[in-house]
Amino acid sequence: MWIDLRSDTVTRPSPGMRRAMYEAEVGDDVFGEDPTVRRLEERVAELLGKEAALFVPSGVMGNQLAIKVLTRPGDEVLLGRESHIFNYESGAPALISGVQLHPLDDAVGWFSSEALTQALRHGHDWEPRSRLVCLENTHNRAGGVVVPLSVIDTLTTAARRHGLALHLDGARLWHASVALDVPERQLATPFDTVSVCLSKGLGAPVGSVLAASADLIAEARRFRKLLGGGMRQVGILAAAGLYALEHHRPLLAEDHAKARRLAEGIAELPAFEIDLTRVQTNIVRFDVRQGTAEGVLAQLRAEGVLMVPFGPHTIRAVTHRDVSMQDIDRALSVLHRLFGRKAV
Amino acid sequence: MWIDLRSDTVTRPSPGMRRAMYEAEVGDDVFGEDPTVRRLEERVAELLGKEAALFVPSGVMGNQLAIKVLTRPGDEVLLGRESHIFNYESGAPALISGVQLHPLDDAVGWFSSEALTQALRHGHDWEPRSRLVCLENTHNRAGGVVVPLSVIDTLTTAARRHGLALHLDGARLWHASVALDVPERQLATPFDTVSVCLSKGLGAPVGSVLAASADLIAEARRFRKLLGGGMRQVGILAAAGLYALEHHRPLLAEDHAKARRLAEGIAELPAFEIDLTRVQTNIVRFDVRQGTAEGVLAQLRAEGVLMVPFGPHTIRAVTHRDVSMQDIDRALSVLHRLFGRKAV
Amino acid sequence: MWIDLRSDTVTRPSPGMRRAMYEAEVGDDVFGEDPTVRRLEERVAELLGKEAALFVPSGVMGNQLAIKVLTRPGDEVLLGRESHIFNYESGAPALISGVQLHPLDDAVGWFSSEALTQALRHGHDWEPRSRLVCLENTHNRAGGVVVPLSVIDTLTTAARRHGLALHLDGARLWHASVALDVPERQLATPFDTVSVCLSKGLGAPVGSVLAASADLIAEARRFRKLLGGGMRQVGILAAAGLYALEHHRPLLAEDHAKARRLAEGIAELPAFEIDLTRVQTNIVRFDVRQGTAEGVLAQLRAEGVLMVPFGPHTIRAVTHRDVSMQDIDRALSVLHRLFGRKAV
Amino acid sequence: MWIDLRSDTVTRPSPGMRRAMYEAEVGDDVFGEDPTVRRLEERVAELLGKEAALFVPSGVMGNQLAIKVLTRPGDEVLLGRESHIFNYESGAPALISGVQLHPLDDAVGWFSSEALTQALRHGHDWEPRSRLVCLENTHNRAGGVVVPLSVIDTLTTAARRHGLALHLDGARLWHASVALDVPERQLATPFDTVSVCLSKGLGAPVGSVLAASADLIAEARRFRKLLGGGMRQVGILAAAGLYALEHHRPLLAEDHAKARRLAEGIAELPAFEIDLTRVQTNIVRFDVRQGTAEGVLAQLRAEGVLMVPFGPHTIRAVTHRDVSMQDIDRALSVLHRLFGRKAV
Repeated sequence: MWIDLRSDTVTRPSPGMRRAMYEAEVGDDVFGEDPTVRRLEERVAELLGKEAALFVPSGVMGNQLAIKVLTRPGDEVLLGRESHIFNYESGAPALISGVQLHPLDDAVGWFSSEALTQALRHGHDWEPRSRLVCLENTHNRAGGVVVPLSVIDTLTTAARRHGLALHLDGARLWHASVALDVPERQLATPFDTVSVCLSKGLGAPVGSVLAASADLIAEARRFRKLLGGGMRQVGILAAAGLYALEHHRPLLAEDHAKARRLAEGIAELPAFEIDLTRVQTNIVRFDVRQGTAEGVLAQLRAEGVLMVPFGPHTIRAVTHRDVSMQDIDRALSVLHRLFGRKAV
Repeated sequence: MWIDLRSDTVTRPSPGMRRAMYEAEVGDDVFGEDPTVRRLEERVAELLGKEAALFVPSGVMGNQLAIKVLTRPGDEVLLGRESHIFNYESGAPALISGVQLHPLDDAVGWFSSEALTQALRHGHDWEPRSRLVCLENTHNRAGGVVVPLSVIDTLTTAARRHGLALHLDGARLWHASVALDVPERQLATPFDTVSVCLSKGLGAPVGSVLAASADLIAEARRFRKLLGGGMRQVGILAAAGLYALEHHRPLLAEDHAKARRLAEGIAELPAFEIDLTRVQTNIVRFDVRQGTAEGVLAQLRAEGVLMVPFGPHTIRAVTHRDVSMQDIDRALSVLHRLFGRKAV
Repeated sequence: MWIDLRSDTVTRPSPGMRRAMYEAEVGDDVFGEDPTVRRLEERVAELLGKEAALFVPSGVMGNQLAIKVLTRPGDEVLLGRESHIFNYESGAPALISGVQLHPLDDAVGWFSSEALTQALRHGHDWEPRSRLVCLENTHNRAGGVVVPLSVIDTLTTAARRHGLALHLDGARLWHASVALDVPERQLATPFDTVSVCLSKGLGAPVGSVLAASADLIAEARRFRKLLGGGMRQVGILAAAGLYALEHHRPLLAEDHAKARRLAEGIAELPAFEIDLTRVQTNIVRFDVRQGTAEGVLAQLRAEGVLMVPFGPHTIRAVTHRDVSMQDIDRALSVLHRLFGRKAV
Repeated sequence: MWIDLRSDTVTRPSPGMRRAMYEAEVGDDVFGEDPTVRRLEERVAELLGKEAALFVPSGVMGNQLAIKVLTRPGDEVLLGRESHIFNYESGAPALISGVQLHPLDDAVGWFSSEALTQALRHGHDWEPRSRLVCLENTHNRAGGVVVPLSVIDTLTTAARRHGLALHLDGARLWHASVALDVPERQLATPFDTVSVCLSKGLGAPVGSVLAASADLIAEARRFRKLLGGGMRQVGILAAAGLYALEHHRPLLAEDHAKARRLAEGIAELPAFEIDLTRVQTNIVRFDVRQGTAEGVLAQLRAEGVLMVPFGPHTIRAVTHRDVSMQDIDRALSVLHRLFGRKAV
């Protein structure tokens, strides 16, 4: 039995969720006739304080549709160098939207408003057009850190002052909400578009949702069809999403506790370096002092513990519903057994 | 209770299919770990006689990935003016692949090899580059007609002689197979890529599959991720697809019989014009002699019968698993009641 | 010495034009500081009755910038199947603007308003968006025919009724103006954007101009830079354009007379078929009754007369400033010598 | 009389160059028949040690064609954050080639091979594909610094080891050749494609040239047509380019001496900060210690001296054929008069 800490995307549907899918009322969503999809879209719009929402097959599609409806070809998008969009979306913004990405240093989980301002273009014909700013909350590659409310305020205010549009990649916004103990809508308000994932910590098998104004969602719906994201009786999946929001979302704090336990256990091992202040949600990011991440990961894999590399000497572990606190303790035993002696 | 003949996309999952989804074994398909998806992809590859296959969320994505992997920007694609790709895919080929569509007359369900040859470019820098030919079998807008084996042979031979790639939009290839009584793979062999739909006549809630060589599928897999079509525990949907192939596919001949009955009943009404020789599968296309298609459709709708317009004076009805032979007879009663007297 | 009737693009600068280039006052046009370019742009804007104009290196760039500023990716452009944009611009609209071309039958030089109306989409998510109509005047592949004022009126009225934008490919608009004896601006008025060429019949070495509203031209200027069409001391070329407008444009009627003489001479030869009513400007298009166009062209080439094929049995000849009436008569001698006897 | 140090693009054609244009032998270059263009292309190919070359209307088009022929949509291009392509080409790579730019720190004029290696992707479907590396020599925003031969060797070797293609933006490669006293071809050898400008320090009114293998140039020629860069009797401009190579290129060292004089004069002024080791060619980049670049530039402009801002506190001046050493001394007088006292 693996202890799979590679990602919260590996979560499998719970029995209750399977039953919800089994019983889902469905219709043809390309014709706008799937009642379960509609309920999910309304529920997410409400949670995020937006007029409308759109179910999409992946977080990538949610982000890419946001970029598509907020930009025109030749525009430039300011975003973090460590962001999911810059690193893990296959270079899609150039191909789908014809936009240039302008990455800024966000090693801490966000970039500064000074960096943002300095990166702005001046409106010359020979420059790309500064158009859109994207934030990511929680920030995956920074280790699941939460973007503080004050930072959101400063950055979005700066962006608005320069007439820029704003997108929030909120794949794990649920976790930020838990960590800050504020409703998701408060974190979503300053943005034109917000994407959230149902298939990560929430545990639904498939699906993300994009929320925005009714006009932007109508436009996104069209481009969803163009990209091949228009699905038929997809209420099957939406039912899982609704179930996840109602039954799994209230349990996310447990995943944070698991991450905290894992991180504190790792902090005891001199073989590793970890900044506990950055373990704020369900992600644990730590560095290997000697040898490589790949080497450590291979040893862990041999003992049934799975994590992923995040750089030559950096490892990421993600806690989620399908690993228990006992699993975390077992993983810690393995870690201590394998790497405890090296500290001597 | 509606008799919904608008499309076979409206089919809802059968109880057995729901159970198959309920019990589906799943994994993270972005990591290639969903066993049910793998089984579905292998099964479809086998049925179509191709090395590999890829599950995608829609027929649009299947077709667009095929175009993407077979062309380069600046190329030209020769296809039918009445084809799904030219009419119902949101203009995607230009946006996603940067290719120009060159539509040829396919009112009968295909275009001639003379038209194909005449449309070829000559390799000048100032021309688009002729690169790809797309066929559609069965052909939706032509009324579900089957492209005969001899036509497939002539057209694909002509295309190959000029070094062109070949894609088959086989959204309803299952129906062509039934109508011709030849295995799907025989219809798929001459093509580089073939897309098929699980969510039309086969009755799965969501999903299509693209089949091709292993190399092309690897490339399509990458662009599926880029377009936002990479899904996680999507074995839930793949289970429905596998069930559909095993349990629904053998029943497609019944849908053809229903279409035949409907068409013959319509042929008795002088208010309409119908070419019975073109009612070959599960689609019935007919013309309104007086008034408009919209007018007729409104009257039918008021009686609980749904069809769609295919032009100012043309109507399409599609039979499928969720309309019974009794439903067809009820629809015919309505038609005769409403339009029978007009013939007098 | 060749008699080069392949195209009016082969014209070489006249001595006066060379002097105008030699003496041109220039500046850095990327900074908007080239006085000669400005004068040319103002002159063309005035001739076409538009607010502003933009010098571009080619007719292709003029047309493509028009499409770029009048559309968005996913849109559809309605245009003639025989148009320059569909056939001779390398498939650029898909690559540069992400738009789908929807070709309509324009064998006579334009398409009908019925065909236009029937080709319109209905606003569904699964359709491309009908956005722009392009006309070509004079129409090259139709044999240089002039689009009549009444046709312009009917088509542009129909397009406006459906909210469509309008572009005129006026590469040879000067010829239409001469043939109809109306000022260019009258032919340009109904269109949002108009492109004209200086390097065809007008005889400038390089250059076209796009005219439109000031806003559209500002946008086109930016995309000209993006496409690599921003040039520095290009007043050198603009001087040739200004010279052409002043000194060559008044002589275009002579080229029409040459074409008429050539056409009438060809009409005497039973080896060829020609519709004299369509010889309206400087283009002569005729068919070969026996054998192929390529065969005839090879025989002519051996005698120093150059024309181009326009199909397997169709030939095009273009008259221009660098062939004299004597050259035409020499060409006719060759034609009669080679093909006169065949008529016997 | 302005002393225009904004850019070497403002150079106007010399009398001899005007005469060369006046007398240029021309033909239709779209048909490959302009003998002067051919001679220029052959000459540049020879100078750069490549099989073939292509005349283009601008440096932007040269760079964009290189990116187009060396990449596919979805690829990633590694280049300097301060490079011309990232900052001054209107965001073209995303629109024209569908590629993502990955900017690396090149404040000194190039990036390190460590940064290059670390930025490489790993071949996952969810990543862009690392494909191309671009260098710029001399490097404009770094102040005209020359990329040393050892750096070229290290970076291109690293790129090749990872299977990447290589493009050199050599807009001012002539200057690097002068500064290093090595032939251009030595600096061009490791690259697949090299673009050079004729309209900057060389003083031709318009034009750049892309050099590469014959296959790549054939492909670039096609995309030049698609982008609207195919021009007709463009031998007029090519004649200026040939003249510039023969008569202006040998004089570039004078521009370097002017820059050196200007820089040393500025170094005497405590109001400014300048790194004289980086004044290697015809560009002088310096910082304003107090106040803003815009403020200083306005004062200079009032005295007839033009430079441009390169940041809030940074100014760039470029020497070229149209400013004499006397002009430089006059500019220095102005600078000393305006800013000399501030040092007290």
